[in-house]
Amino acid sequence: MGIVVSLEDGKRENASIKPLIDLTAADMGRVNELILSKAGSSVEMIPEIANHLISSGGKRLRPMVTLAAAQMFGYSGDGHVKLATSVEFMHTATLLHDDVVDESGMRRGRKTARMIWGNQASVLVGDFLLGQAFRMMVDVGSLPALDILTAAASIIAEGEVMQLSAAKNLETTEDEYLSVIKAKTAALFSAAAEVGPVIAGVGRAERTALRSYGRNLGLAFQLVDDALDYGGNSKDLGKNTGDDFREGKVTLPVILSYRRGTTADREFWKQAIEGNATGDAELEKATGLMIRYGAIGDTISRARHFGDIARDALAPLKATPQKDALLDVIDFCISRVN
Amino acid sequence: MGIVVSLEDGKRENASIKPLIDLTAADMGRVNELILSKAGSSVEMIPEIANHLISSGGKRLRPMVTLAAAQMFGYSGDGHVKLATSVEFMHTATLLHDDVVDESGMRRGRKTARMIWGNQASVLVGDFLLGQAFRMMVDVGSLPALDILTAAASIIAEGEVMQLSAAKNLETTEDEYLSVIKAKTAALFSAAAEVGPVIAGVGRAERTALRSYGRNLGLAFQLVDDALDYGGNSKDLGKNTGDDFREGKVTLPVILSYRRGTTADREFWKQAIEGNATGDAELEKATGLMIRYGAIGDTISRARHFGDIARDALAPLKATPQKDALLDVIDFCISRVN
Repeated sequence: MGIVVSLEDGKRENASIKPLIDLTAADMGRVNELILSKAGSSVEMIPEIANHLISSGGKRLRPMVTLAAAQMFGYSGDGHVKLATSVEFMHTATLLHDDVVDESGMRRGRKTARMIWGNQASVLVGDFLLGQAFRMMVDVGSLPALDILTAAASIIAEGEVMQLSAAKNLETTEDEYLSVIKAKTAALFSAAAEVGPVIAGVGRAERTALRSYGRNLGLAFQLVDDALDYGGNSKDLGKNTGDDFREGKVTLPVILSYRRGTTADREFWKQAIEGNATGDAELEKATGLMIRYGAIGDTISRARHFGDIARDALAPLKATPQKDALLDVIDFCISRVN
Repeated sequence: MGIVVSLEDGKRENASIKPLIDLTAADMGRVNELILSKAGSSVEMIPEIANHLISSGGKRLRPMVTLAAAQMFGYSGDGHVKLATSVEFMHTATLLHDDVVDESGMRRGRKTARMIWGNQASVLVGDFLLGQAFRMMVDVGSLPALDILTAAASIIAEGEVMQLSAAKNLETTEDEYLSVIKAKTAALFSAAAEVGPVIAGVGRAERTALRSYGRNLGLAFQLVDDALDYGGNSKDLGKNTGDDFREGKVTLPVILSYRRGTTADREFWKQAIEGNATGDAELEKATGLMIRYGAIGDTISRARHFGDIARDALAPLKATPQKDALLDVIDFCISRVN
């Protein structure tokens, strides 16, 4: 079942990630080379697992944001390639640890590393990639960029612990949930965007603009992802629809449905999420409740709100192809819900 | 059953860690304050787990080495306190992840964090502490120190993966085992020592001296630890004797016993290590075989060899109380086997 969300007036129709891909294609070629080189090790299991993740067809949105954010201020060195690779490694390390923590079986339509190589290897290869990410940052030699990215690493982990503490808690408020995704998702997008102007050596206004853009893009991205888990199509997503439900994750569509529901509805959610009754029949009922209470559409509305903030964050910056491409990405993220 | 190893002539009798403790006491007070502050978080589970580990009575040898290595070159800032705290956090993060990987139940005579809070929290709080470690390093602002410590983080993780790949493999050679412990243990000791002269801004000779000291002290420390697991006294160690055996770890005492044994002995080791037959009766037999083949004594001899290298590494440096204290630590580590 798909959910069609029409874009509001004034937003680009047919928003595409293609301009961003085109603008960063040459630099992404160098990022991909660096990924292969820095994921290399004489310890065979490391490149095996790293390549499994790297070849899994993620969009690599975060490193493209870093590259475009450096390009738009005329940066001409190679530090942005290293920082973009660091950002992707931080993301990959997080995925490896997340899959262990969530006991996930599938990611992007393929078996997770932990299903093939075990939890132990996933934890340790994640640690290795994180170490390599920090080494590349140090190699760039920008202390302000290091400051931003290492702070993000702490905040991401803190967000993950926060999520774990709140796991299966249906009383979680929307505010609490936003605190979690600000830390676990938005912090890396924010850092990925901010290090662009930082390495380009431009001023505070540009830096805060990109930081705000990244942060709000990340929030929109995560909320759309949460909505997609209850709509969309498993093949397109490379993710099993209903994964979040089966793992008992309390995401915004669940929070809204629970809070808006009747006593009987809330009893259903308790049995499902707290009681691990998350089979196909329950998933169908859950999705039905979400539609009845407008929880998916409103999750997208919330995403659109953060997308608007991201757009305004870039407004004062002069027009460049990179700026346009980054604006397109906002609409692209939101229009993924189709 | 204890194993008495007499110190060779020319080595300090009654070697003690006390001079190191005394010299670094004031700075360690600041390290302890910083540990508490940087392990703080509004996410309750983080300080809970961090405090569990921090209060568990580890010797904090690594941060003391960093402090003494900075003091001996007259360093007078507060960067060494931050770097020492980073080193301890890196170590703590490794312990948290190790316990998950090894499925350990006890550490230093107490339940491991994963037994109390679960594997998931142990993975994520480890990530948080690692992130905080990097932030503190960035805060110090020394790119050479960052380079050394971030390289160590990658190497440690690589060593852990190497160990996992070689797990339960009785054909592991002594050389292969040394490669593992060089990465998983010696790399952090080496980095902990090297950042002292680095932050003090002294020359290359001092830096390589401390790096070599740390590396070889780490090797000696790990080998003695491996020997202690088959001797010593559970109460003194804060570690259950036989832990390594029960987890099927192929450490040097096992490698030597296996390689020196008869066909029947090797069959025993295969059934024990590969077949998970590691009860009390098997532990007694294993310890008996180690004694018969001199495997524990020779593990200590190997440790002494690395201790000698560590001692010579410091030889050219001028006499200071810190130098004497660091030399004492070598003998202290080796004389732990009693």
